[in-house]
Amino acid sequence: MNYLDHAATTPMRPEALAAYAAAHTVAGNPSSLHAGGRQARRVVEESRETLAAELGCRPSELIFTGGGTESDNLALKGLYWARRAADPRRRRVLVTAVEHHAVLDPAHWLGTAQGAVVEPLPVDATGRLAPEALAEALAAGTGGPDDVAVVSVMWANNEVGTVQPVAELAELCHAHGVPFHTDAVQAFGQVPLSFAESGVDAMTVTAHKIGGPVGVGALLTRRGLALTPLTHGGGQERDVRSGTLDTAGAAAFAAAAVAAVRALPTEAERLGALRDELVRQVVAAVPAAVLNGAPPGPGRLPGNAHLSFPGCEGDSLLMLLDARGIACSTGSACTSGVATPSHVLLAMGAGEQRARGSLRFSLGHTSTEADVAAVAAAIGPVVERASRAGELAGLG
Amino acid sequence: MNYLDHAATTPMRPEALAAYAAAHTVAGNPSSLHAGGRQARRVVEESRETLAAELGCRPSELIFTGGGTESDNLALKGLYWARRAADPRRRRVLVTAVEHHAVLDPAHWLGTAQGAVVEPLPVDATGRLAPEALAEALAAGTGGPDDVAVVSVMWANNEVGTVQPVAELAELCHAHGVPFHTDAVQAFGQVPLSFAESGVDAMTVTAHKIGGPVGVGALLTRRGLALTPLTHGGGQERDVRSGTLDTAGAAAFAAAAVAAVRALPTEAERLGALRDELVRQVVAAVPAAVLNGAPPGPGRLPGNAHLSFPGCEGDSLLMLLDARGIACSTGSACTSGVATPSHVLLAMGAGEQRARGSLRFSLGHTSTEADVAAVAAAIGPVVERASRAGELAGLG
Repeated sequence: MNYLDHAATTPMRPEALAAYAAAHTVAGNPSSLHAGGRQARRVVEESRETLAAELGCRPSELIFTGGGTESDNLALKGLYWARRAADPRRRRVLVTAVEHHAVLDPAHWLGTAQGAVVEPLPVDATGRLAPEALAEALAAGTGGPDDVAVVSVMWANNEVGTVQPVAELAELCHAHGVPFHTDAVQAFGQVPLSFAESGVDAMTVTAHKIGGPVGVGALLTRRGLALTPLTHGGGQERDVRSGTLDTAGAAAFAAAAVAAVRALPTEAERLGALRDELVRQVVAAVPAAVLNGAPPGPGRLPGNAHLSFPGCEGDSLLMLLDARGIACSTGSACTSGVATPSHVLLAMGAGEQRARGSLRFSLGHTSTEADVAAVAAAIGPVVERASRAGELAGLG
Repeated sequence: MNYLDHAATTPMRPEALAAYAAAHTVAGNPSSLHAGGRQARRVVEESRETLAAELGCRPSELIFTGGGTESDNLALKGLYWARRAADPRRRRVLVTAVEHHAVLDPAHWLGTAQGAVVEPLPVDATGRLAPEALAEALAAGTGGPDDVAVVSVMWANNEVGTVQPVAELAELCHAHGVPFHTDAVQAFGQVPLSFAESGVDAMTVTAHKIGGPVGVGALLTRRGLALTPLTHGGGQERDVRSGTLDTAGAAAFAAAAVAAVRALPTEAERLGALRDELVRQVVAAVPAAVLNGAPPGPGRLPGNAHLSFPGCEGDSLLMLLDARGIACSTGSACTSGVATPSHVLLAMGAGEQRARGSLRFSLGHTSTEADVAAVAAAIGPVVERASRAGELAGLG
């Protein structure tokens, strides 16, 4: 199989799997007081320190969670509840229209069930939020920025790979005392990233996108940031995230982070070059194909190629490529298989047809030239066949 | 080390660790449409079927979560939000005073932040909730049972091992159309358990208490039960629990469940006999020691021995035993190390001194006669030394 779906999940790195297995020689709950418990706790705290070093935050700023979706939910709901409890005027939740569903859907729920007023932030044709647009949104409404509970803007988009001007956006929010959260699930391990330098107040990361296990993630929160818990219970993670600490998961996450960040400079260049070659070859084979998102460069994740194929259904292209042993995606992996046009492309101003006729190829640590060559060889015949099907369906 | 803290966490079974590692040969997010994704999905669904068979539920009734705390929070908050949205009178939340903090604390939060009225259900001196007491509580209040959003009663207590009359309690609730949730984290794998036969509407289980990995659990919910999600996002698990499905975690959970349930009949007998011998030897060495909870038999988990040592601090006993290589607990592992008397013992009517001077020995799949012998040899001198410290501190 040629696996070009690393943005959905990337194979676990051998270092991470080894760390996971090794941690199981320790018998004990990290909250237990006996020697086994203390040893498990030491593994968790060393993993936290390692991760913090790789993420540019203090160990005390890192809260382990069950993954990116939980971290996003904790950030959105936790900040909304805490900020609104402190001042009932704070009801506005500002998120870009291109966020992952793990941000959009909690925001939507806060709107329908918890009294929030959710306002989408616009993006340009490449998927980028201009700082001016955020400034305008902050100033709007009857109370201006005083009414805002939280702003959430992803570091990099999961579908088209566009990188946001996160530091500038965070600074704008800080000028008004508004907390800024960023979902950095796709960015971590792909682009250089520092929590402290970015100035954000909260950041979501997850292990399985960098070669760690599924089911482990973190929310970084700036010291002193008040956050209402999503899960209450035993009081782990300074009472913000209750639940038995996952010793092995933390160790595996840390091992994956070390490997991913160490490899980043060379990998970013290698994957960027592979991606450019992939795009070049696809456009050579299918001249009508259009690259969506920001142009290759610092404004785009190196491993991301997202293309529209006019007159084709993305799902048909995906299944035809799959039949040739090529794994890719039409966008986010997180939906039930129902073919709906991507909300990301629609927000970028693409028509519904272009939004439906697109594919995401995402590269990662196991990607090779052979993967690119496989796509290059297959894409012409696949698009031709999908176009014929599209013509029959009236898309042509 | 003699590990007698299986109720806090039990070592991962070799079958589970092997299943975890094996699942990593599959590359793909179970929500992805390509071959790798479909293969991962197959692993998840087969694991769901296996678990459902071991738990006596339909596969469609099992929602994978990140563990017991999340399942409890989802059950309590999810049922409260859904039931209250359907009828705003439903504000009462009934939970026993001996629940785990993963039930007590979400209930408390619903009370302080979400308009719920939380009512503790009383237990007797063994920690058991009498069905009559539940009937009385249901009938109380201005609206009687019509005002109740949810009732939650654990299957077996994590500290003293007392088993509740769950089927009777669930039936009482059903007579009034009130949904009944049970936290079966400690019961699963220790006593025979069937979701369908118990008649409960929702049940929490977790993998790491039966020899599976930390960070994987499930909430079983009866078909048609409305539940507001705790985490919104990609729409996995029928939109009730968003987040990337943990293929390897699901496979490891299923492998642990098969091993635990297969061994249950012989293990329950073996552990019950070891526990009885442990209690006998401890009381022989320390005649003042008192067994807390229900008497050994079907009303108590076979692996649980919870004893009070008059005139001693539980924490001192724990540390003195730890120095001799014996790992046990003063109660729940889930607190920050602050010595507070157990809420479970206080609710059972024990005085504060007895509640503080207690130890939990919990047996599991790796327990042997040598573990019991180690406790028997150590407990006399340890209690003597802790008593002297207690006398100095004025506890004598």
